[in-house]
Amino acid sequence: MILLESEYFDARLELLYKLHAEVICDDELERWPDLYTDECVYKLTPRTNYERNLPHGGIFCESRGALIDRVTAIRNTLVYAPRFVSHTITGIRIVAREGNLLRSRSMFTAYQTLVDGNTALQFVGRTFDKVDTSGSEWKFAERIVVYDTDLVFRSVVHPI
Amino acid sequence: MILLESEYFDARLELLYKLHAEVICDDELERWPDLYTDECVYKLTPRTNYERNLPHGGIFCESRGALIDRVTAIRNTLVYAPRFVSHTITGIRIVAREGNLLRSRSMFTAYQTLVDGNTALQFVGRTFDKVDTSGSEWKFAERIVVYDTDLVFRSVVHPI
Amino acid sequence: MILLESEYFDARLELLYKLHAEVICDDELERWPDLYTDECVYKLTPRTNYERNLPHGGIFCESRGALIDRVTAIRNTLVYAPRFVSHTITGIRIVAREGNLLRSRSMFTAYQTLVDGNTALQFVGRTFDKVDTSGSEWKFAERIVVYDTDLVFRSVVHPI
Repeated sequence: MILLESEYFDARLELLYKLHAEVICDDELERWPDLYTDECVYKLTPRTNYERNLPHGGIFCESRGALIDRVTAIRNTLVYAPRFVSHTITGIRIVAREGNLLRSRSMFTAYQTLVDGNTALQFVGRTFDKVDTSGSEWKFAERIVVYDTDLVFRSVVHPI
Repeated sequence: MILLESEYFDARLELLYKLHAEVICDDELERWPDLYTDECVYKLTPRTNYERNLPHGGIFCESRGALIDRVTAIRNTLVYAPRFVSHTITGIRIVAREGNLLRSRSMFTAYQTLVDGNTALQFVGRTFDKVDTSGSEWKFAERIVVYDTDLVFRSVVHPI
Repeated sequence: MILLESEYFDARLELLYKLHAEVICDDELERWPDLYTDECVYKLTPRTNYERNLPHGGIFCESRGALIDRVTAIRNTLVYAPRFVSHTITGIRIVAREGNLLRSRSMFTAYQTLVDGNTALQFVGRTFDKVDTSGSEWKFAERIVVYDTDLVFRSVVHPI
């Protein structure tokens, strides 16, 4: 059940997760959709839903175009207090390889810092992902972000 | 003093630590003892004790059988508020190699989320470990979990 | 723009960051300056300053000698509440290679535990670094620690 993939695969996978955290934490959200395939699924959902197979997601995008919409919303139409975002990503692991697709997972902790300068824990949780390895740059084909923290601190603006 | 082990050793060691976090955070505790050798030591102890060589441990198990007992207690006899557990594991490093045994260490942050949906930091600290590399699956022969956080938030139920 | 360096480079770089966290969290500060070149820059600065190119740093050292001074101050002259320090380092990545110098970056979360036994988040942020790879031991030539958390919890004593 446990695969020990080559270091090459590990390194490329870790790079994708690192870049994902960077574009969000650096506030370069316009580059965020570039890390996904055109046909992709992005979902942010509470663990209590995930374990019951309930479909709701606080953020639920079913294509790269929908991710671009989300970025446009964050930049232009959503109303929210300005904030810095910080993501701690650990436990990145290849779970299975299926042709050009890897199934992988990770753990995360997400923080928000508002203009009062206080940093607050927003979320902890796990991600369950599919990664397309067919191109020269690996991309997420699916990313299911499952958070333990049912009582979300402040609004959810940025993706994890 | 500092050994730079082969990437192979690094990858296998990291895998063990990742699986350790996963079985606990996924609530698959029954698989937790499988990550230990039959003759093992597991201890969870405060840093103030550890630095004085005081033997007390909030969780102290001296065999794999004792780990199985702990899981049985968590599942069947302990009384505690239900919770999700999340572990952030970083700084996994090989400190020394002694035959089939590696001495290694890591840093951790542990969170608990109770049914009110709030996530609270439970512990931060370091682990000082011995890993048996003789079998096809590497296992912990010793795991000493040393936490900075003397004032533990809520009860200690799950291992780190 | 994105370089995928060899696993060898990744492993050596990660080792440097791990040792950096260890000497601080283990309270072996005397070994901290050994991880820097003689001609080095260390700066701890808020993100709001960093993004405006403002030069202020809460800790600002322009040579290894100044780092040694800092350690001397922590040990002998600064007045502060005793504390344990814990650093979570993730997202370590090589950004560019320039001869014997690597440009790299990371993300961090820093905790402090005072004698009341409570652990509190001190900082989250990112580091932007230069690493000298010419010697047998890699060292930081520059380390710019950029924290999101403008309202610092308690005083800043230890480096990140």
